[in-house]
Amino acid sequence: METLIPLLQAKTTAQVITGNIDNLFIIFCTFLVFLMHLGFALLESGLTRSKNTTNVLYKNALVPSIALISFVLCGYGLMFPHFSEGSSGIFGFAGMGVPKGTVTDTTLDGWTYFLFQAMFAATGATIVSGAVAERIKLNAYIIFTTIFLMLFYPVIASWTWGGGWLSDLRFHDFAGSTVVHSVGGAAALAGVATLGTRLGKFNGKIILPLPGHNMTSATTGALLLWLGWIGFNGGSHLSMDSGTTDQIIVITLMAGAAGAIAAHFMIVLVSKKYDLSMLLNGILAGLVSVTAGADQVSLLESLIIGFVGGIIVVPSIYMFESLKLDDPVGALSVHLVCGFWGTLAVGIFGDLASINQFIIQLTGAMVCILTSFICSLLVFSLIKVTMGIRVTKEQELTGLDLTEHGMKAYTFVSK
Amino acid sequence: METLIPLLQAKTTAQVITGNIDNLFIIFCTFLVFLMHLGFALLESGLTRSKNTTNVLYKNALVPSIALISFVLCGYGLMFPHFSEGSSGIFGFAGMGVPKGTVTDTTLDGWTYFLFQAMFAATGATIVSGAVAERIKLNAYIIFTTIFLMLFYPVIASWTWGGGWLSDLRFHDFAGSTVVHSVGGAAALAGVATLGTRLGKFNGKIILPLPGHNMTSATTGALLLWLGWIGFNGGSHLSMDSGTTDQIIVITLMAGAAGAIAAHFMIVLVSKKYDLSMLLNGILAGLVSVTAGADQVSLLESLIIGFVGGIIVVPSIYMFESLKLDDPVGALSVHLVCGFWGTLAVGIFGDLASINQFIIQLTGAMVCILTSFICSLLVFSLIKVTMGIRVTKEQELTGLDLTEHGMKAYTFVSK
Amino acid sequence: METLIPLLQAKTTAQVITGNIDNLFIIFCTFLVFLMHLGFALLESGLTRSKNTTNVLYKNALVPSIALISFVLCGYGLMFPHFSEGSSGIFGFAGMGVPKGTVTDTTLDGWTYFLFQAMFAATGATIVSGAVAERIKLNAYIIFTTIFLMLFYPVIASWTWGGGWLSDLRFHDFAGSTVVHSVGGAAALAGVATLGTRLGKFNGKIILPLPGHNMTSATTGALLLWLGWIGFNGGSHLSMDSGTTDQIIVITLMAGAAGAIAAHFMIVLVSKKYDLSMLLNGILAGLVSVTAGADQVSLLESLIIGFVGGIIVVPSIYMFESLKLDDPVGALSVHLVCGFWGTLAVGIFGDLASINQFIIQLTGAMVCILTSFICSLLVFSLIKVTMGIRVTKEQELTGLDLTEHGMKAYTFVSK
Repeated sequence: METLIPLLQAKTTAQVITGNIDNLFIIFCTFLVFLMHLGFALLESGLTRSKNTTNVLYKNALVPSIALISFVLCGYGLMFPHFSEGSSGIFGFAGMGVPKGTVTDTTLDGWTYFLFQAMFAATGATIVSGAVAERIKLNAYIIFTTIFLMLFYPVIASWTWGGGWLSDLRFHDFAGSTVVHSVGGAAALAGVATLGTRLGKFNGKIILPLPGHNMTSATTGALLLWLGWIGFNGGSHLSMDSGTTDQIIVITLMAGAAGAIAAHFMIVLVSKKYDLSMLLNGILAGLVSVTAGADQVSLLESLIIGFVGGIIVVPSIYMFESLKLDDPVGALSVHLVCGFWGTLAVGIFGDLASINQFIIQLTGAMVCILTSFICSLLVFSLIKVTMGIRVTKEQELTGLDLTEHGMKAYTFVSK
Repeated sequence: METLIPLLQAKTTAQVITGNIDNLFIIFCTFLVFLMHLGFALLESGLTRSKNTTNVLYKNALVPSIALISFVLCGYGLMFPHFSEGSSGIFGFAGMGVPKGTVTDTTLDGWTYFLFQAMFAATGATIVSGAVAERIKLNAYIIFTTIFLMLFYPVIASWTWGGGWLSDLRFHDFAGSTVVHSVGGAAALAGVATLGTRLGKFNGKIILPLPGHNMTSATTGALLLWLGWIGFNGGSHLSMDSGTTDQIIVITLMAGAAGAIAAHFMIVLVSKKYDLSMLLNGILAGLVSVTAGADQVSLLESLIIGFVGGIIVVPSIYMFESLKLDDPVGALSVHLVCGFWGTLAVGIFGDLASINQFIIQLTGAMVCILTSFICSLLVFSLIKVTMGIRVTKEQELTGLDLTEHGMKAYTFVSK
Repeated sequence: METLIPLLQAKTTAQVITGNIDNLFIIFCTFLVFLMHLGFALLESGLTRSKNTTNVLYKNALVPSIALISFVLCGYGLMFPHFSEGSSGIFGFAGMGVPKGTVTDTTLDGWTYFLFQAMFAATGATIVSGAVAERIKLNAYIIFTTIFLMLFYPVIASWTWGGGWLSDLRFHDFAGSTVVHSVGGAAALAGVATLGTRLGKFNGKIILPLPGHNMTSATTGALLLWLGWIGFNGGSHLSMDSGTTDQIIVITLMAGAAGAIAAHFMIVLVSKKYDLSMLLNGILAGLVSVTAGADQVSLLESLIIGFVGGIIVVPSIYMFESLKLDDPVGALSVHLVCGFWGTLAVGIFGDLASINQFIIQLTGAMVCILTSFICSLLVFSLIKVTMGIRVTKEQELTGLDLTEHGMKAYTFVSK
C-alpha cells in the first residue's frame, strides 16, 4: 500500500505532463493558424490592385477580432453544444463562452481549444474576403462576416465536429476540406454571385486581366499559409503523438509540394509563361485537397491527392472566369473546388476508401456547401436590398482606399 | 527499499521532463518576442515616409544585437542581482553574463531565461525608435539605446521583477504594461521633447498629415506584434501549465480584439473614414492595456480593459499632436498611455482590485515612468549639447536614407 | 513483482513523453527552417532589381517542393543509408522514402526527422538561387536544383551526418557551416563562374552598383533568417534538453549579434555610410560562422567567432566583385567564406580545439567544398552546352519577369 500512493501520483503526474505537452502543441498550432490570417491578408492584397490595398488589409486585420468576439458570444457554444452544459454564449458558463476544465475526450484545456477553434473559424470568413474584394462595401462585409461567424459556420461545423448528424453518418473531414474551405468557398460564391463582376474585368466576351499589384506580398502570403497548415492539419489531431501527428504534418506539406509541381507543369502546358500566381494557387490547392484525409492517406496517396488538386485548380480558375464569376484571388477554385475534391478523396484513398464512404463524403460535402451557399446568398441579398452591398461606380474606379478609408496604401516619394 | 530507488528516479524524471516542457515553451515564446522586432520594424517603417525607410530598418535590425550584447555585458546582472552571486556582467559568473543552472523559483534554465529577458528588454528600446523616427541621428539613437539597455531598463525593471522595492510593495505588473511599455514610452517622450517636431508637420496651428508610405508593411507589423503577444504575455507565466498559461494567452489576444473593435467604432465617430493606422493602434492598445493584469482578470474584464484601451488611444494620438509632441507612429499613446491605463486596471479589475492596490499601481507606474523620463531626458539632452541629436534641415528634407545610408529603400524601375 | 509492472510501465510512459517533447521541439524547429525559405525569398528578391522579382519569388516558392519530392524519391535514402534497411527511395520501404519508427540513437520519429532534413536540404539549394539571380534560365535553375537535392547534397552530407567517412574521421560540423552553407556556396560559385556577370555590372575595371529594389523585403528576409536559426542550430541537437539545447540557441543568436556589431563598425570604417545590406550580411555571417561549433564553444567564443564572421564578410564581398564573380546578394561571402571560417573555428575554439582537429576541419571543409564545386560545375556546364543556361541579352535587359513569367511583380497605380 505504501508504494501504491506514489505510483498513483506518478500516474497523475504523467497525465498532467501529457496535458501540458498537448496544450503547448495546440498553442503552437493556434499561433500558426493565426499566422494564416497574415498570410491571407498578404495573398489577397498582393493579388488585387493597389488602389484597394488599404481596404483589403483593413478587412483582414479586423476578421480575427470579429471571430474571437463572435465565438465568445455564441459561436463556440453553438459549435460544441455538449460542452456548454445547457446554455451557450455570454450568459452561459462562467468566463463567458469559454468552458472551464478539460475538453471531453482530449487532454486539452477549454481555453486552448476555444482559441484554436476561433482561429479556425476566422479562416473560413477570410476565404470570403478575397473573392468579394475590390467592390464590396466595408460595412456589408463586416455584417456578413459577423453573421457567418456567429451562426452559419458554428452550426454547419457542429454537424461534423460538434457531435452532430454528419459525424453520426461517419462523414470524415479531418481538418476541414469541407467544413472550413468548401463552406467558406460556398459563402464566397454567394458573395461573388450577388456582387457581380468588377468594372473593367469583362468587355462583352473578352476577359481582361486586372493583375495584382504586388507579387512579393502574394508570395509571402502563400508561403505563410503553407507554414500555417502545419498547425491547421497537425493541430487537428488535437494532441502531440510521435508517429501520428508528425506523419499528418509530413503528409500535409507533401500534398502542397505535389500541388506546386502539378501547377508548374499545367502552367507550362497552358501558357508557356511561368505564372507565379498559378504556382501559389497550386500549393494552396494541394494543401486544401489533403485537409480532409491527412490522417487517413499514405504518403503516396497524399502526393496523388495534392497533384490532382494542383491540376484542377488551373482549369477551375478559367472556368469561373468564363462563367463571369469574378473572383480576384482564385478563392473559389482553391477552397470550394479543391475542398470538394479533397472531401471526395477520403472515399477513394486511404483506410476509409469504399463506395459507401464515397457516397457519405459526397452527401456531407454537398449538404454543407449548399447550406452555406443558400444561407450566405440570403444574407448577401438582404444586405443588397437594404443597405446596399456594392460601392458606387465612382468609388470603385477611384479605389476603395481613398473612398472608404481616406488614405492611400503606398506613398513612394521620388526623393 | 528496492522499489524506492526507481520511485525516486521516477520523480527526478518527472522534474526533468517538466523542465524540458517549460524551457521549450519559453524558447517558443522567445521566438515570438523576437518576431515582435520584425513587427516593430515593419510597423514603424510602414507608418513613416519612404525617404527614411532604410534608416528605420537599420535601427530596428541593430536593436536586438545591442540588446543581446548589452544584456550579457551588464544588463542581466543589474536586473537580477540575486542571480549573479556577488558580481554581474562580463567579469561575473562563468559564461559571461548568463548564469548557470536553473533560475530560482522556476524550472527554467539560465540560458532560456536570459534570452527571454534580453528580447523583452529590446522591445522597450524599440518603442523609442518609432517615436523619434525621421529626424534623429543614427549615432545618437544607438548611443541612447545602448545606455537604456545597459542601465535604465535593467535597473527600473529590477524594482518589479528582480526582487526590488516595488515587488516588496506588491506592485503588480505581470508582463510589463509599465515595466516595458510605459518605461519605453516615457523614454520615447523624452526623445520627442528633446528632438522637436518634424519639418512640415506643423504650420502654425495647422497640423499637417505626413502619411506613412506603406500600409502593407504597417499591417504586417501590427499582426506580427499581435502574434508576438502570445509569447510576451504567455511566456511571462514562465511555465506551461494547462488551464493557466492558455487562459493568459486567450485573455491577452481577446483584449487585442476588443481594442480593435473599439478603435473601429471610434474611427467611425471621429472621421467617417476607416483609418487603418487607427485600427492597428487599437489592436496594440488593447494588448498593451491587458499586459499588466493578464494573469489576474477574467475574460469579460479583459474585453473591458482592451476596449477602453482602444477607445483612449484615438484621442490620445490627437492630444499629443495638439501638444506638438510629434510621434510619427503613435508610440506614446499606445505604449505610454495604454501601459499606464493597463497598470491602473490591475487595481480596478480582477483578483487584486482594491483602493489600496490602485494606489500601489499608481505609485509604481508613476515612479517608473518618471525615472525613465528623467534619466532619458538627461541622456538625450547630453547627446544634444555634445554630438548633436538631430540631423540637419537639409538631411531631413532629403531623407535619412540618402544622407545617413547612401541608399534608397526602394527602386521600382518602370521596365 | 506486483509493483514491478507499473514501474516498467512508468518507465515506458516517460520514454513516450520524452519522445513527444523532442518531436514537438523538432516540428517547431522544422517550421523555423521552413520559415527561412520565406526569409531567403525576401532577402534575395529585395537585394535584386524589381524587373526580376517575380522570377526570384517563383524559384524560391518552388524550391521547398523540389526538396520535399526529391528527398522522398531518393535524397533521404542516400543521406542516411543505414536507415533504409537495404534500399532507398520510392521503391524502398513502406511509405516511400520515409522510414517507419524511431530514428536510431534519437527519440525522433522517422517522419519528423525526414521533414527536418528535407527542409535543411532545401536551404542548401536556396543559397545557389541568390548568387545566380537575374540571369539564369528558370528551367536551368530547376534542373540543377533537382540534381543537387537528389544527389549532390545527400551524398556529401552523408559523409558527415549519415555515418560516413568524415564522421569516422571525427570531422565536426554541428549544424552545417560546411555541410549546408559552404556546400551550397560552392555550388553557387560554380553557377556564378559558369554564368558570367550581369550586364551593366562591370564596365572595364569600373564596378557599377546594381542596387536591390526593396530594403523592406531584404530586412524582413534577414530577420526571418535570424529567427530561423533558432531551429536550424537548436534543432540540430535533435532533442529538447534544458541546459544544452537552450545554450546552443543563445550561443547561435549571440554570434549573429556579434556579426551585426562587427559589420556596423566595418561599414563606418569603409564607407562612412551605414550600408543596410552590409549590416544584414553581417548578421548572417555571424550566424553561419557559429553553425559548425554552436554545441562546442562558450558564449565569449561565440561572440569572437561571430564578430570575425561579420568582419570578413565585408572585404569578401569586395573581393568577389573585384574577381568579377558577380553575386547579387553576397551569398558567396556569407555562406561559402563564413561557412569555411566557422568550420575551421571548431579547431581553434571550444572543447575540440587542437592542431589535429584543425587539420581535420580543414580537410573536411576542403573536400566537401571541392566536391560540391566540381560536381556543380560539371552540371552547370552540361546545361550550358545543351539547353543553354543564360537568358538572352534582350531578356536580361527587359527583365526575367516579363520574358519568363509574362507578368510584372509590382503595379502601383497612381490613382
